[in-house]
Amino acid sequence: MKVNAERFLADLHRLREFGASGIGKGVVRPAFSEADLASRAWLAERFSAAGLEVRYDPVGNLFGLAGAERSLLLGSHSDSQPEGGWLDGALGVIAALEIARAAQEAGAPPVSVVSFEDEEGRFGVTTGSAIWGGALSLDQADLLTDRAGITFADARRRIAGWGGPFVDPARFSAFMEMHIEQGPWLDDAQEAIGVVESIVGIRDMRITFSGQQNHAGTTPMHLRRDAVQGMVAFNTLISERFANVVTPQTVWTVGHVAVHPNASSIVPGRVTFSMQWRDGDPDRLARMEAIIREAADEVAAHQGLGLDFGPMLGLAPVEMDAGLRRALEEAAEDVVPGRWRRMPSGALHDATNVSRHMPVAMLFVPSIGGVSHTFEEDTAEADLVAGLRVMARAVQRTSSG
Amino acid sequence: MKVNAERFLADLHRLREFGASGIGKGVVRPAFSEADLASRAWLAERFSAAGLEVRYDPVGNLFGLAGAERSLLLGSHSDSQPEGGWLDGALGVIAALEIARAAQEAGAPPVSVVSFEDEEGRFGVTTGSAIWGGALSLDQADLLTDRAGITFADARRRIAGWGGPFVDPARFSAFMEMHIEQGPWLDDAQEAIGVVESIVGIRDMRITFSGQQNHAGTTPMHLRRDAVQGMVAFNTLISERFANVVTPQTVWTVGHVAVHPNASSIVPGRVTFSMQWRDGDPDRLARMEAIIREAADEVAAHQGLGLDFGPMLGLAPVEMDAGLRRALEEAAEDVVPGRWRRMPSGALHDATNVSRHMPVAMLFVPSIGGVSHTFEEDTAEADLVAGLRVMARAVQRTSSG
Repeated sequence: MKVNAERFLADLHRLREFGASGIGKGVVRPAFSEADLASRAWLAERFSAAGLEVRYDPVGNLFGLAGAERSLLLGSHSDSQPEGGWLDGALGVIAALEIARAAQEAGAPPVSVVSFEDEEGRFGVTTGSAIWGGALSLDQADLLTDRAGITFADARRRIAGWGGPFVDPARFSAFMEMHIEQGPWLDDAQEAIGVVESIVGIRDMRITFSGQQNHAGTTPMHLRRDAVQGMVAFNTLISERFANVVTPQTVWTVGHVAVHPNASSIVPGRVTFSMQWRDGDPDRLARMEAIIREAADEVAAHQGLGLDFGPMLGLAPVEMDAGLRRALEEAAEDVVPGRWRRMPSGALHDATNVSRHMPVAMLFVPSIGGVSHTFEEDTAEADLVAGLRVMARAVQRTSSG
Repeated sequence: MKVNAERFLADLHRLREFGASGIGKGVVRPAFSEADLASRAWLAERFSAAGLEVRYDPVGNLFGLAGAERSLLLGSHSDSQPEGGWLDGALGVIAALEIARAAQEAGAPPVSVVSFEDEEGRFGVTTGSAIWGGALSLDQADLLTDRAGITFADARRRIAGWGGPFVDPARFSAFMEMHIEQGPWLDDAQEAIGVVESIVGIRDMRITFSGQQNHAGTTPMHLRRDAVQGMVAFNTLISERFANVVTPQTVWTVGHVAVHPNASSIVPGRVTFSMQWRDGDPDRLARMEAIIREAADEVAAHQGLGLDFGPMLGLAPVEMDAGLRRALEEAAEDVVPGRWRRMPSGALHDATNVSRHMPVAMLFVPSIGGVSHTFEEDTAEADLVAGLRVMARAVQRTSSG
């Protein structure tokens, strides 16, 4: 089985033309946009030309099914962020297509392909694969809205004529996804391949400190109960305490802050902020949660503030399948000896949802400068091709094992 | 000269009925509201009945002029916050009226009275006295808008028929203002009177830290340039460094915070926040400014953030006139021996603006619980009367001196 790098790159560049932003290699191809629907129609033709059976499901996930009763599934997503890069998702779809084609040409065990819809979350979070994986019901999904207030139900009406039933996950023996790293580790180390060990778990909650809204001129410092100063002390405290618990891959973020009444001459009476943390180890996530709750309690007690924890949303870490991982590692060592590493995925991917049905594994190629979700996102051509070859070799190992 | 406490309290309660909120003693009497205009019409009648010449100026400031060529001016404001207390401003106006009446009855040197308009800043900041004092031109003021977008020019058209020219400040020899403290010091110490030494100066500016907006899952902590964490470090640093510089009366406030893009899964790329500080000593205000600028520079350099200081708004501290202060201090010691103190005013007052034309002084009575700008604001009746007697006695000393 021999992949064709030129054909792969040509298809990748052709896909980029759907929604090309006109700025660098950027694309604007959000789920259910004209560009997204046109690109899916083109993908369907390419699947068909590769001898795959084209199937849309009711939410826009596009499959190219190999004839066999049971096959390996490869793929990713081809929708983009509102201002996205040309490879985020698209790379995994086109690599899957090329490998399915090469398998067919070589008479190797057949490979099916998928492009999931709305991974980038115009409506939900990894919406298409979440529904197919069973994490999100269709009824729940239909109520989701985008920023303009359009519901998922309305959006998917645009493909009402195209869709058949959901594809039975039992058709597939395993799933592999190739993706850009979206972080700096590989690029910094000048390595070509990352074999994902796990997709990190996420915990996310809102924390509210309530103090006493008061006059910023006449209220002495020692009598203030200032909610913003509570948030400041809390952030300082958790940064100190996390130091003994975290790894270099652990991350935490206070990304959203809302102050009330938010006026320069009023001591803030209330602040609500998001507290999100991610790690591959469920125990570490739990230890961090304990630190967060204790630190917030201590700050509230010390500063005389009220404290409220919102509901905690959590996604457990997803372990990659050991056998598939080994196949990817051995293939990486064959193709780019000494220039690959094992690593966690800090971002969510469709593989998270697919893992509810079957073993999954993921492969990363470097992101130049570590940037993504921007028109500047890119990867060196040699790394794209290395990724394709590693994936193809791992597929051969898996199919023959 | 003998003030009449019952008459004073009766007028104070009558004024409260204009805009009475129905909740405790609270009032809703913002500048140019129906309640405000009705209360001014009533005040004008009372001024007239006390033998004072009624004069509205073009911006709604209401004077009751004593016949003399030159007289002392007493007063404050009678507009309220959108949800205000019954004494904030009103106390100083009615005390002035009672003292002017008592002076007239006793044949003492005449006293004029004023109720300034929009001290509470529906449009600007201490708008009526700022215009009369010359800090704000009428043309500038007319462009100011309230939260609903109504201009000051439109609002003051409601009194177009009432107003004469501006009253010549040269008619007055000095200004004294009685006011509620709006802070906790007197109430905490169970003292009855505060003689104001100075109205603190204010400095206020916007500070912006700019980092790198990025993916909250894939961006490692050591590579982040997180604007919110810059704000956290800055707040911690200035709190430490201020400790060696400030007095118990010094205050500083971060009351307004705006984060961009303000999403829980995105490392914050930018935060703009207000930094306001107040103190009676111009040197201390300058030392604090230096600490603020240095701390922000250090945090920005250390965390790789961009830094922008917005324009700094400043109001210099206003010293109370030494002679008027001494008269108030001696009167306080006569009326409530050992139960008064010298203190700064942390809040702005109309006296700040009037000080551009003549010597000024201020007298505080306690605020129960230190609260104001709320329906709950109140002061014990005995303290109201003590304040009236101290002011009357100081007027006598001043007029006879």
